Amino acid sequence: MSQLQRIAIAPSQLQQGQILLTKDQQHYLGRVLRLREGDRFIAMDGIGKWWLAQLEGEQAQVLEPLTVETELPVSITLIAALPKGNGFDEVVRCCTELGVACIAPVLSDRTLLHPSPQKLERWRRIAAEAAEQSERSFVPTILEPVAFSTELSFVNSQRYICVARGDFPHLRDCLQYKKQRDIVIAIGPEGGWTEKEVQDAIASGFQPVSLGRRILRAVTAPVVALSLITAACEV
Amino acid sequence: MSQLQRIAIAPSQLQQGQILLTKDQQHYLGRVLRLREGDRFIAMDGIGKWWLAQLEGEQAQVLEPLTVETELPVSITLIAALPKGNGFDEVVRCCTELGVACIAPVLSDRTLLHPSPQKLERWRRIAAEAAEQSERSFVPTILEPVAFSTELSFVNSQRYICVARGDFPHLRDCLQYKKQRDIVIAIGPEGGWTEKEVQDAIASGFQPVSLGRRILRAVTAPVVALSLITAACEV
Repeated sequence: MSQLQRIAIAPSQLQQGQILLTKDQQHYLGRVLRLREGDRFIAMDGIGKWWLAQLEGEQAQVLEPLTVETELPVSITLIAALPKGNGFDEVVRCCTELGVACIAPVLSDRTLLHPSPQKLERWRRIAAEAAEQSERSFVPTILEPVAFSTELSFVNSQRYICVARGDFPHLRDCLQYKKQRDIVIAIGPEGGWTEKEVQDAIASGFQPVSLGRRILRAVTAPVVALSLITAACEV
Repeated sequence: MSQLQRIAIAPSQLQQGQILLTKDQQHYLGRVLRLREGDRFIAMDGIGKWWLAQLEGEQAQVLEPLTVETELPVSITLIAALPKGNGFDEVVRCCTELGVACIAPVLSDRTLLHPSPQKLERWRRIAAEAAEQSERSFVPTILEPVAFSTELSFVNSQRYICVARGDFPHLRDCLQYKKQRDIVIAIGPEGGWTEKEVQDAIASGFQPVSLGRRILRAVTAPVVALSLITAACEV
């Protein structure tokens, strides 16, 4: 199974076998996903069409169309604050089964522990195993942990931040599934995001949402959020 | 926190401080939940009203109305085939956080292992802890494991059975949240229900549903199903 990164494109970006990348997409591919000239990735139109593409400067060459049966039509990125202990193993496993495309572990104001490189290797191995067991076509990307604030710059995506204690609408009521838009969901640590983190996220375009009236653990919340998002996106 | 059983009633059943129980409810309280004369339980109207009641023959005495902030307006029962190892601990913990009212572990054709009484004690302890941590008002009931076939007689409830490989509609599209109806969802073991189990369940009024195109583990599927159901029911 290939471990290719995915981005959503609008059909108008595809012209004569080339994908004309937007500035945001160039930034995302180069800076966030760290792809370099000649690297391959997957372009999706958000309604079920997939292409294997190769980065060439400010555009990409379409290499071939792909047939995909078990993947979601959009790319879902989970930003999750790292819980203590081994809890993140289970988050990676369950969210991979559910269909996540990218997991971005983050350090938040309330969880500053910096995982070892071995941990990152371990999560990538778990993701590969879970992708295979759940019969997915692709292995999700696990990014290197960074501070939550650096992850706020996702663009051209529908962004949500889950807040446990607050008077925010339920995620279920906010999921307007829009074609050609990737989805980013941020889940806090045990104890929740700090007020400043929530405010910064909102200022960066994240919509604050609730996952219900009960308090979920940091390892349960990502699975619940992904369950709702994937159910809303599945075609 | 009290560990009371819950049933849904229609407003018309409540007359002059008494609840007139239907034959099905008498059966459920007496045979399935094993309540006896004088035992207390909770009656819910499915739209947010709760009463503490006491069993008295074929009816029940209303003792007092209850104020409930963090509970769902319906009673959700999870029927789950026991996975190998300690996987059920996590199912109990996550589903309790999500708001399940009753968990019925079952022995299926593909999982015949009979848990020790210590296991049942352990699950009840986990449910109590998780209910407290998630700030619930009630601790879910964990029933003693029985064969799946004996659990098929749930009545007056919306019943679903999750089937991994089949051409069944997505659970998300089948959740018609009906007031005054309890919800029962059955999740199979690793390897899935046998064809006969699915057919028997359908014959008993269970609706077969899918949780998506990817294959979920037996410990992930209940959390995914409960996420969708609780989101649909939360008021």
